[in-house]
Amino acid sequence: MSAAAIDRLAVIGCGLIGSSIIRAARDKGAAASISVYDSSAAVRERVRALGLADAVFDAPDAAVKDADLVIFAPPPAAIGEAVRAAAAGLKRGAIISDVGSVKGAVAEAMTEAAPDGVFVVPGHPIAGTEQSGPDAGFATLFENRWAILCPLADDLAYRTAVETLTAFWLALGSNVELMDARHHDIVLAVTSHLPHLIAYNIVGTAADIEEVAEGEVMKYSAGGFRDFTRIAASDPVMWRDVFLLNRDAVLETLGQFTEDLQALSRAIRRGEGDKLEALFTRTRAIRRGIIAAGQESAEPNFGRDKK
Amino acid sequence: MSAAAIDRLAVIGCGLIGSSIIRAARDKGAAASISVYDSSAAVRERVRALGLADAVFDAPDAAVKDADLVIFAPPPAAIGEAVRAAAAGLKRGAIISDVGSVKGAVAEAMTEAAPDGVFVVPGHPIAGTEQSGPDAGFATLFENRWAILCPLADDLAYRTAVETLTAFWLALGSNVELMDARHHDIVLAVTSHLPHLIAYNIVGTAADIEEVAEGEVMKYSAGGFRDFTRIAASDPVMWRDVFLLNRDAVLETLGQFTEDLQALSRAIRRGEGDKLEALFTRTRAIRRGIIAAGQESAEPNFGRDKK
Repeated sequence: MSAAAIDRLAVIGCGLIGSSIIRAARDKGAAASISVYDSSAAVRERVRALGLADAVFDAPDAAVKDADLVIFAPPPAAIGEAVRAAAAGLKRGAIISDVGSVKGAVAEAMTEAAPDGVFVVPGHPIAGTEQSGPDAGFATLFENRWAILCPLADDLAYRTAVETLTAFWLALGSNVELMDARHHDIVLAVTSHLPHLIAYNIVGTAADIEEVAEGEVMKYSAGGFRDFTRIAASDPVMWRDVFLLNRDAVLETLGQFTEDLQALSRAIRRGEGDKLEALFTRTRAIRRGIIAAGQESAEPNFGRDKK
Repeated sequence: MSAAAIDRLAVIGCGLIGSSIIRAARDKGAAASISVYDSSAAVRERVRALGLADAVFDAPDAAVKDADLVIFAPPPAAIGEAVRAAAAGLKRGAIISDVGSVKGAVAEAMTEAAPDGVFVVPGHPIAGTEQSGPDAGFATLFENRWAILCPLADDLAYRTAVETLTAFWLALGSNVELMDARHHDIVLAVTSHLPHLIAYNIVGTAADIEEVAEGEVMKYSAGGFRDFTRIAASDPVMWRDVFLLNRDAVLETLGQFTEDLQALSRAIRRGEGDKLEALFTRTRAIRRGIIAAGQESAEPNFGRDKK
């Protein structure tokens, strides 16, 4: 028995998140050995060149052979198929998890694709950057961030599997929370999916406004616009999947956002300064709460401008 | 004749921007002497304690006496009144400018309030942070940012005034652009005012969604939401003024944003993944352009998470 949380770890899909898990697991000694598969031959080559894993396989079932924990980290809509492709190699008693930003639809797809005798424990680390690919990952990405696990059963053996996965994420530096998949999807619709949707939208709007040249938008973006371009630079395929797989929760929160925006627009049109000031004062407190919760830098401008 | 761009500088209103101008002017030797007035006695006390200026006055007309350049930096709706209050002290030939994020309405108010014989040259440095007050300012705030000046006349004496003000902003480390006030207001509606409106709105929406507790919003904000809270923590009074003073341009760009959002919402509802992916790929390029233009950090996550 190794001192690591996991003896044999396999990671399927080696982009920003997959490669960060590998780097963190190595740095922290959270897994005794790590094998990798990615559906892109170019990514596999790059992972070999970077020397990230103990072994890089050209087939998913070979990569997961004898693994105690398999983390699937392709774009969300590809997870079910990735589990199916690896299924023949999974050993009895293996824990399989994922990192997808949607949990309801992905949990269903994983459960359907998984062979009997493995423990499916869907997961989602709330961490990332706007960059993609195996070069973008880094070992400290999960430190003091939250990993949400969405257990699907409650028997003793399953609970042990959840405990093992919890220990793994704790070893990477994460905090861990257990949550119902449906609740996860509405919480993330608010804290992640709607913000991305709005950011993608405003960046598109700004690029299309007739009276303002695209060069002007870039030049004068320090007035606020540039902040939105960060998350609007996130992986296009992953985000396409997120909106399609979490459609109901996204449209519900978008409906609320749109109603609020109409009220705000009305207040501007009517010159109701008091209403505006009241909202703008209230929103200030939310940021203070996020900084107090250790989830944001207290530096002005995210610390991007050094004094 | 001093080697400084300006011999006697007065700054009226000493918050984030006013105090940054003072700090930058001192650091760069852009003004031989600096006097200050702020309508808040507490701010005046603080500016004295910080030792920012050569002299802090308790009346605006005393602060601007003999000044060659007066920069008015109170919230935008207070600028006209601030000029009126200082008018008796202004010397003939003085240049008066401002830093307001709206130029059409503010230029009008300044012109109306200014005495004969002074040069009114409205201005706006595209720089800031989410923090407020004289302690929040810093000397490098304007470095490699754009200061927009909106000239109101074209005679020789006026052009000399514009050149002097240009030299002052260049001395603070800014780039300078001349622009028609109306065009400024539509450009800034896109690159600054609409982003702030959207950010204030989404932070309000997230706080109000029934199914998700405010604590959860804060805890899981690293999924994207926290980015929006930065500009939604900006000064409430200043932003109230901006939306009321630039109402038409803000509502026009908001209309465009809302139409685009409806189209995006429709694409999600209909499961049109190709449309989503196409938009999300296009928006990525805009951020690269902003980074290439030197207006944004190339570090992932704004550099807020150190690797």
